[in-house]
Amino acid sequence: MTASSLPALAPELRPALDLAASLFDRLRAASRDEPGVTRASYGAGERAAHALLADAARAAGLRVAVDAIGTLRMTLPGRDPALPAVVIGSHLDSVPHGGNFDGAAGVVMGLAAAAHRARRGLKSARDLLILGIRAEEMCWFPAHYLGSRALFGLLPPEAPDTLRRGDTGSTLAEHMAAEGFDPAPIRAGRALLDPRRVACFIEPHIEQGPALVAQGLPAAIVTGIRGSRRYPAVTVTGEHAHAGAVPRAQRRDAALAGVALIAALDRRWAELEASGADLVCTAGVLSTDPSVHATTKIPGHFRFSLDIRSEDAALLGAVDAWLRSEAAALEAERGVRFDFGAGTHAAPARMDAGLQAALRLAGERAGIPLGRMASGAGHDCATFAGLGIPSAMLFLRNDHGSHNPREAMDMADFGAGLAVLTGALEEWLG
Amino acid sequence: MTASSLPALAPELRPALDLAASLFDRLRAASRDEPGVTRASYGAGERAAHALLADAARAAGLRVAVDAIGTLRMTLPGRDPALPAVVIGSHLDSVPHGGNFDGAAGVVMGLAAAAHRARRGLKSARDLLILGIRAEEMCWFPAHYLGSRALFGLLPPEAPDTLRRGDTGSTLAEHMAAEGFDPAPIRAGRALLDPRRVACFIEPHIEQGPALVAQGLPAAIVTGIRGSRRYPAVTVTGEHAHAGAVPRAQRRDAALAGVALIAALDRRWAELEASGADLVCTAGVLSTDPSVHATTKIPGHFRFSLDIRSEDAALLGAVDAWLRSEAAALEAERGVRFDFGAGTHAAPARMDAGLQAALRLAGERAGIPLGRMASGAGHDCATFAGLGIPSAMLFLRNDHGSHNPREAMDMADFGAGLAVLTGALEEWLG
Repeated sequence: MTASSLPALAPELRPALDLAASLFDRLRAASRDEPGVTRASYGAGERAAHALLADAARAAGLRVAVDAIGTLRMTLPGRDPALPAVVIGSHLDSVPHGGNFDGAAGVVMGLAAAAHRARRGLKSARDLLILGIRAEEMCWFPAHYLGSRALFGLLPPEAPDTLRRGDTGSTLAEHMAAEGFDPAPIRAGRALLDPRRVACFIEPHIEQGPALVAQGLPAAIVTGIRGSRRYPAVTVTGEHAHAGAVPRAQRRDAALAGVALIAALDRRWAELEASGADLVCTAGVLSTDPSVHATTKIPGHFRFSLDIRSEDAALLGAVDAWLRSEAAALEAERGVRFDFGAGTHAAPARMDAGLQAALRLAGERAGIPLGRMASGAGHDCATFAGLGIPSAMLFLRNDHGSHNPREAMDMADFGAGLAVLTGALEEWLG
Repeated sequence: MTASSLPALAPELRPALDLAASLFDRLRAASRDEPGVTRASYGAGERAAHALLADAARAAGLRVAVDAIGTLRMTLPGRDPALPAVVIGSHLDSVPHGGNFDGAAGVVMGLAAAAHRARRGLKSARDLLILGIRAEEMCWFPAHYLGSRALFGLLPPEAPDTLRRGDTGSTLAEHMAAEGFDPAPIRAGRALLDPRRVACFIEPHIEQGPALVAQGLPAAIVTGIRGSRRYPAVTVTGEHAHAGAVPRAQRRDAALAGVALIAALDRRWAELEASGADLVCTAGVLSTDPSVHATTKIPGHFRFSLDIRSEDAALLGAVDAWLRSEAAALEAERGVRFDFGAGTHAAPARMDAGLQAALRLAGERAGIPLGRMASGAGHDCATFAGLGIPSAMLFLRNDHGSHNPREAMDMADFGAGLAVLTGALEEWLG
């Protein structure tokens, strides 16, 4: 299905779509950093994006507030303040020289949906709260879901003073203070949003892979967010030696041992996928030691990264255990030593079945076909799901992947997503 | 067999062994560059080594000459100047911070053998010519066997002006001129030694691998010098993408494709070796692109080097062809492109069967057990063999490999080699 073959947008959604298009243009202009845009966590581009969205929310008649850590809260009040709110949100930071849509599309869609309801005078029981979350991109501060975990008091208390931004070397506390925010709630582990006040959380987001383009679908319902086992630097230690003069049996070739492990993982992955398992595996950083390697030298050192993701926590554990036993066998066979180093593990997040069903129903009513897929990347939504909040994600078709200036979300697909979301909101808001 | 379990050195060889030990001490002192020694091609350390050997040769009563390109020629004349000479030699340069024995051991052993014959007044029909060859280590000027090929007029005529020393950036011609030598014969392709004037060529050399240490043998007769197919930079091009968001079937992972090729080569090598083939394979330099790689990114670029060596020219060609067909299959299967880049190929060199037999007989007569092995590294001897000159190499046990300061040749093993060589010279010199 191409954009032009989508059903025509309901005319009443046109003003909301125009608002969204205008917001994307203004976001791009306000954070332009050719090629692409840069919206650093607790930096200038993120600040500009928050200011733009806040102005637009006020203009649309929403109540706007900013909390101590800088989360932007845009509320369309419901009739009954005692009811937990329906929350839509995503992050407004980007990677350096990233695209305009990753993160922002979710906040803009939430705001567009709220503005649509405000303009049409649609009444509901629950509040509709749109969140502009801070600091999701790990390239700035090395922590998963920094902004959403801080919102719920889930960061380690030392985080403001130990996390440093990669580009500046300054701490999170210093960057927060420079933007006028206060790290004290993080240090105290204090939640700024009570999970019990959140009826459900919806995060619209561009797809970061090519599946929807390949399938010809405008959007998809996310079935779960993959967890990961990530080892940034697995090292293999053998012995450097002359490439021509050492027989096979006497070599302790670190590179061939590492290559054997990666190739075995690749074959194991193919088998598991063929049997229906959800799994993706990546070795992203590979290197012999540049200070000593040579074409004519058997490598004594080799390092590589591993990133293994699945919706299935048990499978992640099984693959991890399998990797370590393969490595032990290679150590014995090849006279090398593997060190997996420090790993970071993220648990898979389940998406709520009822929310998924509501989105699917809304799609059917609007005549919009929706795919279904796991999210391979982590998202703030995983923080909400991890707290037991019913959570869902809606992926929007996007060509060329994300985290680069070539992100290509079509506004017609955004409109299709908006139609699905506004349809589902009718049910959720009561 | 440990050094102390070798048969006692024949007493008449003791003065020659003492001369050799003293020469190694003086060589080390004259080119010390901690850790190790540095004797740059057409540089200070090589110059000092040539001067030391020339003085010792004169003191031993040999005729000393230096040709236009700096080759040191030390001659013990025979009775019949019409007969081609028996030639012993190796190179006197070293890698930076290398060991004291690689190259030098062969020249010192030749000089020690000639000095022994001179001192004992042994007469022969043929001249015994000892060569101190220039510039064998490729780390200085990027050409195989520079000094020996120049000696026979085999370098490309442009070499003096296009080859530049890696550390200085100056041309071969400039470095030769600075040392008082003349690049004109190289530019003219003129041989400074007539192959027809060489009856045979013998190159003693330390073993650069661990085989003799493992076998407990003091020395070995080389059966052939492995040729090589060398690709310094095979590149694989795929597409960078998000590590979590792209399904296996849609990935164009350059690293996994490259890893699959290297792992397949490793398995093929194991099979070929099990069937008795002579082969060693090394991937020495591996790297994803450091400017863009990341743990969470599918690599779009990967590069690695390949160095494949065998005594068997047909096998080298077959492995090369197999590699290319494997790469083509991986290209089709994984949506990547392999580029093998510029390769350098060196043909294997056959060692003369008669010379090998004479060395073995001399070993038996002296009670010295000799191993046999292929030389995995290239040596000047390959230049002589390539010209059809009957050639042989004698490897000396050496721990810790070569091209590093930990080279550990034992003088008792050198003495065993000297006994074998002097024994065989009786036959060869006539």
